[in-house]
Amino acid sequence: MPQDNDHGQTIAPIQGSRIDAYVDRYAARATGMVASEVRALFSVASRPEVVSLAGGMPYVTALPLDVVGELVADLVARRGPVALQYGSGQGDPHLREQICDVMRMEGIEANSDDVVVTVGSQQALDLITRIFIDPGDVVLAEGPSYVGALGTFSAYQARVIHVAMDSEGIVPESLAQTIYALRSAGNRIKFLYTIPTFQNPAGVTLSAARRQQVLEICQRADVLIVEDNPYGMLGFDGEPMRTLRADNADGVVYLGSFSKTLAPGFRVGWALAPHAIREKLVLAMESAVLSHSSFTQLAVGQYLATQPWREQIKAFRELYRERRDTMLSSLEALMPDGVTWTRPGGGFFVWATLPEGLDSKALLPRAVAERVAFVPGTGFFADGGGARHMRLSYCYPEPDRIREGVRRLAGVIGQELRVRDTFGTGSPAERAGIDTPAPDLA
Amino acid sequence: MPQDNDHGQTIAPIQGSRIDAYVDRYAARATGMVASEVRALFSVASRPEVVSLAGGMPYVTALPLDVVGELVADLVARRGPVALQYGSGQGDPHLREQICDVMRMEGIEANSDDVVVTVGSQQALDLITRIFIDPGDVVLAEGPSYVGALGTFSAYQARVIHVAMDSEGIVPESLAQTIYALRSAGNRIKFLYTIPTFQNPAGVTLSAARRQQVLEICQRADVLIVEDNPYGMLGFDGEPMRTLRADNADGVVYLGSFSKTLAPGFRVGWALAPHAIREKLVLAMESAVLSHSSFTQLAVGQYLATQPWREQIKAFRELYRERRDTMLSSLEALMPDGVTWTRPGGGFFVWATLPEGLDSKALLPRAVAERVAFVPGTGFFADGGGARHMRLSYCYPEPDRIREGVRRLAGVIGQELRVRDTFGTGSPAERAGIDTPAPDLA
Repeated sequence: MPQDNDHGQTIAPIQGSRIDAYVDRYAARATGMVASEVRALFSVASRPEVVSLAGGMPYVTALPLDVVGELVADLVARRGPVALQYGSGQGDPHLREQICDVMRMEGIEANSDDVVVTVGSQQALDLITRIFIDPGDVVLAEGPSYVGALGTFSAYQARVIHVAMDSEGIVPESLAQTIYALRSAGNRIKFLYTIPTFQNPAGVTLSAARRQQVLEICQRADVLIVEDNPYGMLGFDGEPMRTLRADNADGVVYLGSFSKTLAPGFRVGWALAPHAIREKLVLAMESAVLSHSSFTQLAVGQYLATQPWREQIKAFRELYRERRDTMLSSLEALMPDGVTWTRPGGGFFVWATLPEGLDSKALLPRAVAERVAFVPGTGFFADGGGARHMRLSYCYPEPDRIREGVRRLAGVIGQELRVRDTFGTGSPAERAGIDTPAPDLA
Repeated sequence: MPQDNDHGQTIAPIQGSRIDAYVDRYAARATGMVASEVRALFSVASRPEVVSLAGGMPYVTALPLDVVGELVADLVARRGPVALQYGSGQGDPHLREQICDVMRMEGIEANSDDVVVTVGSQQALDLITRIFIDPGDVVLAEGPSYVGALGTFSAYQARVIHVAMDSEGIVPESLAQTIYALRSAGNRIKFLYTIPTFQNPAGVTLSAARRQQVLEICQRADVLIVEDNPYGMLGFDGEPMRTLRADNADGVVYLGSFSKTLAPGFRVGWALAPHAIREKLVLAMESAVLSHSSFTQLAVGQYLATQPWREQIKAFRELYRERRDTMLSSLEALMPDGVTWTRPGGGFFVWATLPEGLDSKALLPRAVAERVAFVPGTGFFADGGGARHMRLSYCYPEPDRIREGVRRLAGVIGQELRVRDTFGTGSPAERAGIDTPAPDLA
C-alpha cells in the first residue's frame, strides 16, 4: 500500500511487505538484508526526465562499438571452444599476465600467479571479506566509504570503524589512534579498506606523503591493507599516482577493475594478493561461482591485446574531465551559500555538504519531484553519519544535463533553506536498509 | 618438496606450503579452505595423453560456433551500450521471461519476478547458503552429492547430513527418519539439497512416485527444498521429468543453468524462489558481485530468441546418449568382476563401486600413471564416506577415448585386485581438502 513520508508525498511501498514464511529461518547475517525506502525512490529516478547525479555508471557509449563487435565475433571464431567452456577458478592465465602489464602503469611489479580474476572487483571484496571476517571483527575504512564495500562487510557481520579523512585522504594520526584504541579495547582488526585515489564517494586522493605514513602505520601495527583502485587510471592531471601496493607487496591486497577503463558489462575485476591469501581466494572463488566467464575474460584479453587501450583510457579521462569541470563550475555558479563540495582530480564523484539543519535523505524525494537525483550521504557511513552529505556523480550524464541537474538541485536546496529559516529544522528520516540505487539504476 | 604416498609413488607437493603470515587471521570458515593432494594429481591428468573421465565439462564443440559468433557481434552492434553497462542485481528482465519459458518444459509455471539470474547455478547455491546458514545449521543432501555444493555448505560452516539414496533416488523413509532424528536432537534443519534428475555424481533419478513422497515429507516437516536441476533437459528417454518445483511453488527453491544446455563459458544460471527469499537473494547478489555480466546475459537471451535451442538440446542429448552407451558397454565388457555401476537415463555421470578392500583415492595415482583419470568418491561425501566409489564422466571425451579410458581403468583395477588378493588391503589415504579437480580440469 502506498504511504506518505514526512513531507506528505506518496512514495512507493517497500518491496517485500508480503508476509515472509521464512522469516524465522534466515541466517543471522541476512537480518540486515533489506532494501530501504530510498530504493523505491531511485526507481522513479531512473525515468528519462530525471537527471541522475546518483549513478556510478561509466559512459560506455564512448567505446568503439564496431571494434568491440568484431573482436567478440573473432574470439568465438578463433577460440570458441575455450571461450564457451568452464575456466580456471583463478582466471585465464594470459589475462592475468596482461593485468600485470596494466598494474605496471601504477608502479606495481607483480607475478601473474598472484592475481585472481573476479566478477568485478566487488567479488574480490566479497571473497576477501569471506576469508578474513568472523562476526564482530573490525574493518577500518575511510568515512565516508564505498557503499558496496560497506554492504559486503555488513553481510559478513564485520564491525566497520571509520577513520577520519580530509581533502588529502585518510588522516594518518586518526588511523594510528583508531588502531591503538581498538586494540586496547581488545578488538580484532582484520584490515584497512581504502580507496586512496579519487575516492568513492568523496572524490579525494591520498597525498604521496600520507601514502608512506599509512603504509608505515599499518606495517608497524601489522594491519593488512585492502587497496581498492577502480579509478586510479582516470586522473585528470599528469601520470597515475603510485599505488600503496607498489611499495608493499606483502601487506597489501590490491583490487583492480576493467569496469571503468573498459566496460562494466564484462564484470572483469581482479585481486592481487600475497601468495598465501591468493590461494585461499582461489578456493573461495571456486566455492562461490566455480569460475568466472571464460568468454568475458577472453574478450577483455583480446581487447587489451589488439586495441589501443591506453588511448581509450586517455579519451575517457578527457571526457570525464570535461564533465567534472562542468559540475564544478555549475556548483560554483548555482549553489546557495553554505553548500560546500570537494574538487576531485579524477574519478567520477563530487562529495557535497549541506548547510546545518538540512538532511540529504529527507531532501531526496523533493529532488526527485524536481527531476534530479543524487545519493544521500548516509549510505556511505556504517555508523549513521553522513546526513548532511550527498554524492554527486558527473560520469554518466552529458555536460548540459549535469548543468541542468545542478540547477534543479540548487533550487531544491534553496527552497529547503528557506523552509529551515522559517520553521526551523525537522527531524531527519529514520535509516533502514540500503540507501543507494540498485546497480542498474546506479 | 615432493613426498611419497602409501604406494611409494612421488606426487606433487601441495601448493601453499610456503609459510603463511596470515594463518592466525583468517575467518573460522576459511580453515577448511585447502586444496587436497588429489588436486595436484589432476593437473597431471589434464595432459592430452590422459583420458579424463573426471570432468563435468559439456562438449561445447558441438555448438554452431559461426552462429554464436554472429550473434554476439550483432548484440554489440544493436545493444552495445546496454550489453557493456552494469545490469540489475536480479538479472535482465527479458532473459528472466525466457527462463520461465525454458522451465515450462519441466512443468514449472513461474513469474519472471521470482527469478534471479546468477553466475552459474553455483552462485545460486552460494547465495542460498549465505542467506540461510548459520554455523552448525544442518543441510540434508543425498549421499553422494555434488561436490561443489558440499564445498559451499562447508564454506558457510553448515553440517551436511546425508540421506540414503538408491537406484530410484532419495529413500523417502530415510529422509523422514533423518529429519525426525535430527529434530529430536535439537538440530536446526535449514533445507534439503537435492539433484532429483540424473544426479551428480550418482547418475540416478528420483522416481515419479518418490517425488510426491519427498514433497509430502518436506511439506509436513516444514523443510525447504533446494532442487538443483542442471541436467533435467538432457534425458535420453522421452520427455523431461516433472520437477519438484512444478508441484510446490512455496516450499522449493529451484536452480537452473544454461551451462549444460548451451555453454558454461557464459556462466548464466538462475534461482527461482518464493518471493520473500527471492528478495534476499537479490540483495545478497548485489553484495556479492553487484550484478552479473549484462553481456553474457544478453548473449544467452539473443541465442534463445533467435536460435532453435530446443533442437540444439536434442542434438546434445543424442551426443551424450551415444557416449553413455559407449561407457556402459565398455564397463560391461572390460571391468573385472565385483565392480558395479549405475545406469544413468541422462546427464553426464556413471557412479562406480569397487570391490571390498579397494580404495578409489589410493587408486587415482596409479590410474593417472596409466593415463586415465576419474574423481574419487570421497569428494562427494561430507562424512568421509565414498572410499570405494568413483565418478566416471562420459560427457567430454569422444566415444573411442571413453572406451580406451575404461580399458585403462579396468587394467588398473584388475592389477589392484591382484595386489589385494596377494597382500591383503592397505589403509586408505587420509582425507584433507577438496578431492576434485579445479573447474578448468573438471
